[in-house]
This record gives sequence, structure tokens and C-alpha cells, in this order.
Amino acid sequence: MSKYKAYFIDLDGTIYQGNKKMPSGKRFIDRLKAANIPYLFVTNNSTKNPEDVADNLTKNHDIETSADQVYTSSMATADFLKTIASPDKKRVYIIGESGLRDALINADFTITSDENADFVVAGLDRAFNYEKLTTATLAIQQGAQFIATNRDTNLPNERGMLPGAGSLISAIQTATQVEPTVIAKPEIPIMDGALNKLHINQQDVVMVGDNYNTDILAGINSQIDTLLVYSGVSTPKQISQMVQKPTHEVETLDNWTI
Amino acid sequence: MSKYKAYFIDLDGTIYQGNKKMPSGKRFIDRLKAANIPYLFVTNNSTKNPEDVADNLTKNHDIETSADQVYTSSMATADFLKTIASPDKKRVYIIGESGLRDALINADFTITSDENADFVVAGLDRAFNYEKLTTATLAIQQGAQFIATNRDTNLPNERGMLPGAGSLISAIQTATQVEPTVIAKPEIPIMDGALNKLHINQQDVVMVGDNYNTDILAGINSQIDTLLVYSGVSTPKQISQMVQKPTHEVETLDNWTI
Repeated sequence: MSKYKAYFIDLDGTIYQGNKKMPSGKRFIDRLKAANIPYLFVTNNSTKNPEDVADNLTKNHDIETSADQVYTSSMATADFLKTIASPDKKRVYIIGESGLRDALINADFTITSDENADFVVAGLDRAFNYEKLTTATLAIQQGAQFIATNRDTNLPNERGMLPGAGSLISAIQTATQVEPTVIAKPEIPIMDGALNKLHINQQDVVMVGDNYNTDILAGINSQIDTLLVYSGVSTPKQISQMVQKPTHEVETLDNWTI
Repeated sequence: MSKYKAYFIDLDGTIYQGNKKMPSGKRFIDRLKAANIPYLFVTNNSTKNPEDVADNLTKNHDIETSADQVYTSSMATADFLKTIASPDKKRVYIIGESGLRDALINADFTITSDENADFVVAGLDRAFNYEKLTTATLAIQQGAQFIATNRDTNLPNERGMLPGAGSLISAIQTATQVEPTVIAKPEIPIMDGALNKLHINQQDVVMVGDNYNTDILAGINSQIDTLLVYSGVSTPKQISQMVQKPTHEVETLDNWTI
């Protein structure tokens, strides 16, 4: 019998490395498919739609994936907002890209272009500018609730470690002195949303990832077992110094028996 | 005999209130002029040239002022950079407006448009955007020294409390994990620059302002006496809770004998 009934799986550093394929990642997914074990790719990325994430896996990494196997921080943000927004308070000012915009529109929120908003939702936005920062700041000062998709500080690309959502969110936080509610790993809302999406209980699933500070802490914060794979960000030396260890650690996913 | 040989004087909240005249501010300056006591307006504003600041005082507040009576955080930044830059390392990437750009060009620095820079100097920039944030981030990651004109979190205007330089600087700091050297009040470099500009010793001057966290701490940090005037940001109740008090406190500058 399998150890877990379902898997939550990080992407970059776990299943692929940037643009590069990672054969152990593909083999891991192939084994889950063969064993008919449900899984969900849980990503802090807020800019892409689930269809784009699935397309990238299918076309560039030979891992056939459908959009409903993907859960982004934007989808988790929309799911979280649905649980807290009253019917007459659905105006959202967005700092973000199409992944966030589409997720909120699909969840029946009204996107505003000025500070008359019930929520300010901020994620990575490569068209960020002072005017957007100002509108978000004024909206929050006037009472809008401040939600952040994620606080990832950087976005690796070919130019280097570019500013991530966390950088833009720090700007808004400094101007408003308001701390946002954060949705993505390592916070709880994205885990709650992922559990709901797979209709599964927390004791039946394991969170798989390469990054202690996001993937593993997300599991720990939600009482979900964790599997750290040393193919990405975190190193065995770092983990040896942590008080709260991952439930499981493997050098490569090839070493994991599902 | 006068208590002090010279005065450093804050502007907004001390000499005027936004666009509004403050008669006690004008009377204070008139008395300094009549007594022939030198003074310097020391402002955290980094966007304006000293000529513009002097013009605003002369035309809108009836306080005749010349540019050499004004010391902005941009001028202090240029003076500070001159003390630390070697002759072959004078490339500066700027996040800022004309006040900062002009001050650095006047001090013979080379303004770059890409990340090949020896310094990143950041202040308020109402044309701030993700591309500028990225260039600053990459430059600092590649070794450029990170200098901030000031960390004022907000800029009051008719729309509300807009994001200040400190907001933009938080974004860069989050993306780089590098803390900037800050020039303006309450930091020491702007006080050093002001002392140099008036050729005066710290025991002979008093820093006058309405804001404990900028004006008064600037004096305290530089062992300069301070005069807090309760016409702006700080209140007597706040000051009663501070361990380090201003040297002098007055309700209005009319109550101060020069």
C-alpha cells in the first residue's frame, strides 16, 4: 500500500530546473500515474494561468498535465477571497499579471482601476509602476484589505535574480504600514485550497518540494507531511541546523518509494 | 549673545505647512536675518533642485531665500559620494528625479542607464517602474554600492499619503537583501554635509524641526543640539515617552529667543 493517498508537488527545483528537464521529476510523475495516485502541482507562481503551467509541463518537460492538476497562488488567492468577501464587497484592485486577473474574474470579482476597492491583491507585476503603487497605497489607507499572492523575493531568469512579488509587496507595506495576508507557500491558505481541490484530508497527503522555506514550511504550518528533495534550493547542511525537520528527505525523487 | 552661531532648519511642518504659510516660520527667519545669524534649510526632499526650493520659499511663503541657503538630501548624497568614490568608479545608476540627477551630474558622476554601475542611488522617483527596480537590483547584486537619499515612507499631497522614497527603497532592499547607506535625516551624512557647507562645528549649531524621528534624531545622532517645534508631526505626548529628549521644545517658533 502507498504511504500517501495524494501528493502536492512543487515545480521548479523539484520537477524541472528552470528551462532544463529533470529526468527524476518525470519518472516520479510517471510512477504516480501508473499507481493511479492523485497529485496536484502547487506553485507560488501568480502570473501564469493553470493552462499555461500545464502546457509548459506537457510540451517542454514531457510530463503530460491537465490544467486541473495545477494550483497556482493566484487560484488560491481567488479561493481564499471567496471565503472572506461579502456579496456586496467584491471590488479588487490588482497588482499582478494575467494569471491573477483571470483567476479573480473567474471567481466573479470586479476589477477596479482606482482606489475604490474592497481588496488590494498584489503579486508579481512586471508592469509595476509608481502610479500602481500609489493606487494600492491609497486604497489600503482607505480601508481595503491587503492580500499578497506570495512573498517570493526573487524570480530567477537569464538576466539574473529579478525582483519577485515580495519586492513589490514590501514597497506597499512600507507606504501603508499594513502587513498583508499572504496566500502562497509557506502560508496556510494555499494548502487549505489545495486540500479542498483534491477533497483530501491533511493526514493523507505529502507536500513534495526542494525549498525548506516555502514547500516544507508550508507543510509544517498545515500539519501536512513533507518530502524534501535535494535537487534545488535547500541543502542537507541547512536542514541539519533546522529544529523542525521535513518528514522525509531524499537526494533525488528516484530514491522515493511511493 | 545668541545661544547658537548657526541654525539648521527643517521646512515642511516647521517653516510652512504644505502649501500653507506659517507666519511664525517667517517671523523666525526674519529674526535670524536681522541678527545676521547664518542658517541652512536642511530638507530630506530629493526631487527638487535647491533653486526650486528657494523659489518656493521666496514666492509662496514670502521668505526670501537663495539656493545656497538650501541643502537637500540629493546635495548631501552627492557630497557623500564624493568622499567615498575613487576616481575610476564614478558610474551611478539613479532611481530619482531631476534634483538627484542634477546634484550628481554637478558632482562629476557619470549617470548610467544599465546595471554597469559602481553605485545605485535611490530616492523618490514618480516614474519608478519594474524595469528600473530590476536594473537597480541587478547592479547591486553585481557589486554596486546601494545608497538611499532618504527613507521617508510617505509624501503628503492632495490625493493623500503617497508612497515616499522609503517605499521604493524597501522594494530594492527586499530584492537584493542589501541594506542601503542612508544619507538624509535622521542619518549622519546629511548633518556632516551641512556642517561642512556652513563651515561650522557641531557644538555651535542647533537643528530645528517638527519631526522627532527625522529632525531631532538627526541632531541626536550627530551630537548637535535640537529644537523641536510642535507645529507639525510630533506631539508633546509622544516626546514625553522618549528616552532621548530634544535639547529644547517650543509650542511655536515665536516662543524661541535666538
